[in-house]
Amino acid sequence: MDMITSVQNEKVKAWRKLHKRKERLKSKLFIVEGYHLVEEAWKSNWEIKELIVMDQTDIPSWYKESNITVVSKQVFQSISKTETPQGILAIVKMKQTFIQNGKHLLLIDAVQDPGNLGTIIRTADAAGLGGIILGEGTVDVFNDKVIRATQGSLFHIPIKESLLVEEINTLKNNGYHIWASALEEAQDYQEVNVPEKVALLLGNEGAGINQKYIEQADLSVKIPIYGKAESLNVGVAASILMYYIVQNTHINK
Amino acid sequence: MDMITSVQNEKVKAWRKLHKRKERLKSKLFIVEGYHLVEEAWKSNWEIKELIVMDQTDIPSWYKESNITVVSKQVFQSISKTETPQGILAIVKMKQTFIQNGKHLLLIDAVQDPGNLGTIIRTADAAGLGGIILGEGTVDVFNDKVIRATQGSLFHIPIKESLLVEEINTLKNNGYHIWASALEEAQDYQEVNVPEKVALLLGNEGAGINQKYIEQADLSVKIPIYGKAESLNVGVAASILMYYIVQNTHINK
Repeated sequence: MDMITSVQNEKVKAWRKLHKRKERLKSKLFIVEGYHLVEEAWKSNWEIKELIVMDQTDIPSWYKESNITVVSKQVFQSISKTETPQGILAIVKMKQTFIQNGKHLLLIDAVQDPGNLGTIIRTADAAGLGGIILGEGTVDVFNDKVIRATQGSLFHIPIKESLLVEEINTLKNNGYHIWASALEEAQDYQEVNVPEKVALLLGNEGAGINQKYIEQADLSVKIPIYGKAESLNVGVAASILMYYIVQNTHINK
Repeated sequence: MDMITSVQNEKVKAWRKLHKRKERLKSKLFIVEGYHLVEEAWKSNWEIKELIVMDQTDIPSWYKESNITVVSKQVFQSISKTETPQGILAIVKMKQTFIQNGKHLLLIDAVQDPGNLGTIIRTADAAGLGGIILGEGTVDVFNDKVIRATQGSLFHIPIKESLLVEEINTLKNNGYHIWASALEEAQDYQEVNVPEKVALLLGNEGAGINQKYIEQADLSVKIPIYGKAESLNVGVAASILMYYIVQNTHINK
């Protein structure tokens, strides 16, 4: 198999460009790095356009396609975003997935920290939610740090980017109750009966949820603070609420 | 007020050394950066040895002490660990705090990601726990990223570093039930009655809890996974379990 050894190679330059959101949107491609994540993409039937393997690195035994490119260490490092690269990455095709009507959902308003968004996606997958809608100002789900923090869950759960105002209206028309996670004028979540279909709305790390969405919501719920912390991390709040909602649906208080 | 303008100034060099754990342990000092965190340290009665303010930066009105040093922008940046410095940091004295016997506690075995440990400390504070014991191999609580992720909670809740084997024995002798958060041979946490005093044990991001501590524990609890994720982030698991424990103490199933 031929090996690419120049960082100026046109294919290599094109791959590197995928670190920019603009290029990802144009090409509908993104980069997934490391054995575990590449395998998660493949197992979940996301199309791998190209598998890029560093010289002297094992090609996973489960990978049966022929679109494999071997590159030198220097070339691999010019594409990789990890500190200690495993020597494997994949160029993956974006895939349209569909939010599952009938299951609890998540709405995200402008969460900006990649680790937070990735962790929220991972927990939503674990909690068995039907999908996640990312509103304006939310960090790009195909950002490398987001992907890493999802641990592969972005391949398991439907995710779409959309306008929250419209999505909330549509969800309400479809029988969803919109719960905003907020600190002010909010009820203790444990005191609220969980309806069959909840769309849980989460806000930005500093500013919380935009007021216009709070006004659209059916109610605001908060997690009580028993100690001296002022608030909870958004990923933590999301996790406690998601698990509570999933585990308490149909239980009357 | 005189201003330090040289990055080679002896005081500046000494402050910079505090980014190393060894120097922190020797001097019993650590660095806290940004208005919010410095105020949290002060409000919680941690001793501020020195307040370091960048030229042209406001000194907080609540700060009444005279141990203030103004430094040039270049000097400040040589000490700062943040990308967009607010121009204020404090050299804070470590303080011995005491775990509150009688309240639920947290035991940490080798959590290594600073963001995870910081978030866990913040949530433990919010949940009103009585303290956190950090075992061998856990990231240093005075690491700048840990401090930032705590959002100041490290000043609110007692934290100590210790040997877990001995701490677990002592806690058991004091009537604590040790719950290990683990995936194997574990009970669904919702099916277990919560005793009056629980010490919740959390493990490393990759390897989980060391087997020797699991054997000391009274039981292992797990959070059910309803979707396709293999596991939860350790901070997320900690949060769900802590809030459950605090909110369900004395409720018989």
